[in-house]
Amino acid sequence: MELAELIKLARGGEKADLLLRKARVVNVFSHEIIETHVAIAGDRIVGLGDYSARETIDLKGSYVCPGFIDGHVHIESSMVSPPEFARAVVPHGTTSVVADPHEIANVLGIEGVRYMLDASEGLPLTVFVMAPSCVPATHLETSGAELLWHDLVPLLDHPRVLGLAEMMNFPGVIHGVPAVLDKICAFAGHSLDGHAPGLSGQDLQAYVAAGITSDHECTTLEEAREKLRLGMYVMIREGTTARNLKALLPLVTPQNARRCLFVTDDRHPADLLNEGHIDSLVRMAIGQGLDPITAIQMATINAAERFGLHDRGAIAPGYRADLVVFDDLENLRVEKVFSGGRLVAEDGRIAPGAVKEVAAHVRGSVNVNWGGVDLKIPARGQRARVIGVVPDQIITEGLSEEVKVENGLAVADVERDILKVAVIERHRGTGNTGLGFVRGFGLKRGAIASSVAHDSHNIIVVGTGDADMMAAAHAVADMGGGLAAVENGAVRASLPLPIAGLMSDQPLEAVREEMGKLLVVAQEMGSRLRDPFMAMSFLALPVIPALKLTDRGLVDVNRFEFVPLFEEQRTGGINGLEGLTDWRD
Amino acid sequence: MELAELIKLARGGEKADLLLRKARVVNVFSHEIIETHVAIAGDRIVGLGDYSARETIDLKGSYVCPGFIDGHVHIESSMVSPPEFARAVVPHGTTSVVADPHEIANVLGIEGVRYMLDASEGLPLTVFVMAPSCVPATHLETSGAELLWHDLVPLLDHPRVLGLAEMMNFPGVIHGVPAVLDKICAFAGHSLDGHAPGLSGQDLQAYVAAGITSDHECTTLEEAREKLRLGMYVMIREGTTARNLKALLPLVTPQNARRCLFVTDDRHPADLLNEGHIDSLVRMAIGQGLDPITAIQMATINAAERFGLHDRGAIAPGYRADLVVFDDLENLRVEKVFSGGRLVAEDGRIAPGAVKEVAAHVRGSVNVNWGGVDLKIPARGQRARVIGVVPDQIITEGLSEEVKVENGLAVADVERDILKVAVIERHRGTGNTGLGFVRGFGLKRGAIASSVAHDSHNIIVVGTGDADMMAAAHAVADMGGGLAAVENGAVRASLPLPIAGLMSDQPLEAVREEMGKLLVVAQEMGSRLRDPFMAMSFLALPVIPALKLTDRGLVDVNRFEFVPLFEEQRTGGINGLEGLTDWRD
Repeated sequence: MELAELIKLARGGEKADLLLRKARVVNVFSHEIIETHVAIAGDRIVGLGDYSARETIDLKGSYVCPGFIDGHVHIESSMVSPPEFARAVVPHGTTSVVADPHEIANVLGIEGVRYMLDASEGLPLTVFVMAPSCVPATHLETSGAELLWHDLVPLLDHPRVLGLAEMMNFPGVIHGVPAVLDKICAFAGHSLDGHAPGLSGQDLQAYVAAGITSDHECTTLEEAREKLRLGMYVMIREGTTARNLKALLPLVTPQNARRCLFVTDDRHPADLLNEGHIDSLVRMAIGQGLDPITAIQMATINAAERFGLHDRGAIAPGYRADLVVFDDLENLRVEKVFSGGRLVAEDGRIAPGAVKEVAAHVRGSVNVNWGGVDLKIPARGQRARVIGVVPDQIITEGLSEEVKVENGLAVADVERDILKVAVIERHRGTGNTGLGFVRGFGLKRGAIASSVAHDSHNIIVVGTGDADMMAAAHAVADMGGGLAAVENGAVRASLPLPIAGLMSDQPLEAVREEMGKLLVVAQEMGSRLRDPFMAMSFLALPVIPALKLTDRGLVDVNRFEFVPLFEEQRTGGINGLEGLTDWRD
Repeated sequence: MELAELIKLARGGEKADLLLRKARVVNVFSHEIIETHVAIAGDRIVGLGDYSARETIDLKGSYVCPGFIDGHVHIESSMVSPPEFARAVVPHGTTSVVADPHEIANVLGIEGVRYMLDASEGLPLTVFVMAPSCVPATHLETSGAELLWHDLVPLLDHPRVLGLAEMMNFPGVIHGVPAVLDKICAFAGHSLDGHAPGLSGQDLQAYVAAGITSDHECTTLEEAREKLRLGMYVMIREGTTARNLKALLPLVTPQNARRCLFVTDDRHPADLLNEGHIDSLVRMAIGQGLDPITAIQMATINAAERFGLHDRGAIAPGYRADLVVFDDLENLRVEKVFSGGRLVAEDGRIAPGAVKEVAAHVRGSVNVNWGGVDLKIPARGQRARVIGVVPDQIITEGLSEEVKVENGLAVADVERDILKVAVIERHRGTGNTGLGFVRGFGLKRGAIASSVAHDSHNIIVVGTGDADMMAAAHAVADMGGGLAAVENGAVRASLPLPIAGLMSDQPLEAVREEMGKLLVVAQEMGSRLRDPFMAMSFLALPVIPALKLTDRGLVDVNRFEFVPLFEEQRTGGINGLEGLTDWRD
C-alpha cells in the first residue's frame, strides 16, 4: 500500500477493508488489555478504535494478539516443505519464523537456501532466513557443500535474510579461526545467532565479544542467567527432543523479560500436529505461572525486537495485520489467525486457498557411487569400538566389544544387539563408506536406512546383514532420499523425502502417517527405541560425544579425530586419517 | 581493535589495558547489581570478572553503569560548539547523544549538518546525528536553506547518521503532503523521530502509521500513554523550558519501561552547568520514586535499543567502554566517566586533553543587504496587531492596540510598553525586513538583538527606537552573529556566536558569563522578563500561536497566513501576501 493511502485510512478518511469489532487487544507495548476495534486495510493495521470498513467481524470480546514469531527453527525437521510447514503452524497462530536452513544447506549449499526462500514466497507465514554459518559442520565428514563468507554474503540482498544463523562452531570462534571470524565480520551489523551449549566463563565472554547476541541452547537456569547477563537474548526452546521451557522459565522477571523469547528449533511432524507450535510454548509458560501478557510479549514483540523486525510483533497503525484471535487468556487456544490482513486459519484449520503451492524446484540430491560401496568389514582385530546408543539422547557412548567373525569378516551379532552401521556418502559420488558397529537398536532382522543424518545428511543404514542394508540404502536412494525399512530384501515401509533427501512434498499428516508405519515396522523387526530413525540420524554427527561414524570413518568426538574400528589397529582408520583439518586449530 | 584480538582478550589470553576492580556493575539486561571487575582494552569492554591488566583502578565498591545517552538534543541550544558541549556534558556521564542539528541546518543547510559531524569527530562524546526533517520550518519565512529528501539521503552514508529527525510538520504528514512523505519514504528502515505535541486520536494514528516511532513532546500523562500504546518510544524530556519529567514519570512501569527514555531537547548554558545533563533526569526520576536501575536503563540501553545502537548502552564483552562511576545509587552523582576506555572526566571536571579541538570550520553565515533594511513603519492605520509576550512561554498573544504616530510614522510607545520589533533576513541578502510591535519586554531605552531566532534564525531586534535597533542589528552582524544590547548607539554587552550565528567558539562557562552580563544590562534597560533574549528568539517562530513576525511579515499562526500590521489594512502585509505556499495544502 502507498504510504499516503495508509495515512488517509488511519485518519478514517476512507473505509478500511476489515474491522475486527469488540476485541480485547493485547498491547505488547504498554502490557495491557485494551477493549477496542482493529481496522485493517490491505496487509496492514490502519488503526484502533472507531473506523468504518467494508467488512466487519464481531469478535464479541475475544482477545487479539500479534501473530506469533518463532525466533529459531529448522523447517527441515518438520520433514515437510515450507508451504506444508506453513499449513501446519499457521493455524497455531505462528505468522513469522526465523529459519536456519542449515540442513538443506549441508546438502545443496546456497541452492538449498535459495529453495527455502523461493518455496516460502507468498505464504501466510513469513519465513525469514538466517544464513547457515556452519556448512559443513566439521571436516570429518563429506557434505554436499561448503559455504564460506563470500558464499553467504550475497544472501543478505534478499529482503527476508536477516543475519548469520546459529554459530555452532563456538570452538572456532573462541580460538579465533580466521574462516569463522570472516563470516562474523561479514555479517557485522546484522543479527548473529549463537549456539553454545554449556559455554561459560571467559570462553562465553569471548563468544559474546565476537558479537553473537543470542543463544537457544541453555538447559539450566544458571546457564541462561549467565548468558542473559552478558546481553544474549535467551531463546527458550521447546522442541521435540530438547525441551527447556520448564527449566528456564524461572529466569523471566518483569524487568528482564524483554530479552527472552520462544523458539522451537526442531519439531517433528507428530509434535507439530499434536502439541502445536509457539502457541504451545505460550500455553505452557502461562501454565507454569508466567503472566500471560508477558508470555505473549515473548512470543511476539521480543522476537521482533531481537531481529529488528519493525513491522510486526505488535498491534499498532502501520504494522502488518498478523493477528491471533483467542478466547481464554489463561489457556490460550487459537481460534482465528490473520496473516497480512487475510483470515488464513480458523478452528485449527488452514483456510482454503491460504497456502498457495509455489513453483519452487530443487534438483535431486542423491548421488551415490555404488561401485565404491562395500559393506564388508574385514576382521582386523577381535575387539571393536562400538557406538552405544543412549535412548532419547543424541549423545552416544564409546563401547569396546568383542566382534563376531565369519569367514574373516566382522559381522552383526544380533544376539548381543551389536548391529552394523554404515554411512554412505551421497552428495559427490565419492563412494566413501564409513563402517562400524552400534548397540542399542535391538533389530532382530532387516535394516533401516535414512538420508536424514545430521549434519551432512549422507545415507545412514543400521542393520543385521549386508544384503538388507544395501537394499535399504538403495531404497532410500531410489526415492531421491527418504526413510526405509527393509526385511529379506523387500521394502516394508518407506517415506520419500525428495526435497534434498530431507523433506517430503506431501502434507504433514501424510508424513506423520508414513512415519508411524515406519516405526511400527521397525518395532516388528525388533527395535527397542521409541524412534530408531531419529536415533540413527544423530549417529553421524561428529560434534556430539562420544563415538560417531561419518562417511569417512569412526570419530572419537572427545578427541575430535578419527579412530580405527578395531582396537588392535594402531594407525589409519577404515578410511584413513590423512588430511584432516581440526576446526579447533 | 581486530576481532581476533578482542576475542583473545575476552578469554584472558593476554593482559587487558585496564581493570576496574571491585565494581558494583549495573546490569541493564538482567536488572541487577553485580559485584565484579570490569576489564577494558582499547575502546572496548573485554569481560567481567577476574582478568589481569596493565593498569588497575580500585573502585572500592562504587557503582558502574553504562555511559548515558541523550536520545534527542539540539546542541545549538547550548550555544557552544560540539567540542565545548562535550566538555560540559561528559563530566555528567553523558557519552552519547542523538543530535538534531535543526538550527544550524536552517542557517547553513547540509553544510551545517556536516559541520556538526566534523566538529564532533574524535570527542569523548559520540554525537549521532538525525537528518533535520523540517528545513525550513515553514514557507512563511526565509531560511538559509531548504532541504528536500534528496539533500538528506546522502547523510546516511555517514556512520553517525541514524535517521530522520523530529518530524515537526505533523500536519504535512497526516495530510499526506508529497514532499513530506518523500522524506519519510527515503528514510524507511531507519529511525524516524516524532514531534507531535497534543496530537491524538486518528490524527496521531495516521502519524504513527507513517512510521514515526518516537515522541518527545508529551506534556501530560494521558498523552504519553496514548503514544506509548501506539508503539512510540516515549522520550521523557527535561529541558530548560519544557520540563515534563514529573508529569510523565507515573507512566513508567516495570513492564513498559523499555519503551521510555530520557532526553533534554534544549538545555541552555546555565542549566547545563547548574543542573547537569541526563544525570539530572536520572536523579530526578529516582527522587520521584522510580527504581534506580530502571532509571539507568532508560538513560542507557533503552535509548540504545530505540536507535539500534548495538555497541553501547550496556556493560558486556564487546561493548564500548563508555562507563559512569558513582557512589550512591539513590542520589547519583557522577564521579568518574570513561569514554571509549579512557578516563575522560573526574569529579565533575573534564580530564586534560580529553576534548581535542577539532579543525572543523564553517563559513560566516551573516549576509544582510543593509541597503534594503529600513525600520520605519509608515502609519497606515491607527490600530495595529501587537505581539503580546507571555512570560516563560513560547506562545504569544495577538493583541490589538492603538499606535503612537510621529511624523506619519508608527513608533514605539515606551510608556505603554509597546516596542518595535524587526526581523532582518540575514542569509541571502534579500533585504527582507519584517516589522511589527511587541508588548511585554518592558525596555525603557535601547535595543536588544540576536541572530538566534527560531527556526530560520534571522536577526531579530526589539527596541525603543530605530537608531539603537539598527545599531544592535549591526552589532550582531559585525560579530558574525550573536547577541547584543545597545543603548544610545553603544554596545553595552554582547555575546559573539560566530558559528552559524548560533554557537560560540568559547567554553560554556564564558558563554554563561557573557549571557549573564547581557541579562543584567537588559534589566538595567528596563526588561521585565527573566530572559528577554530567549523570549525574543521565539517571536519569529510561525508554528507556535498566536501572532509572530518573520522577515516576510506578520503571521497569524492560527490561520497560518500573513496578516497586515494595521487592522485598517485589508490586503497585503508589510511585505505582501503573494506567492505563499501553505504547508498544509
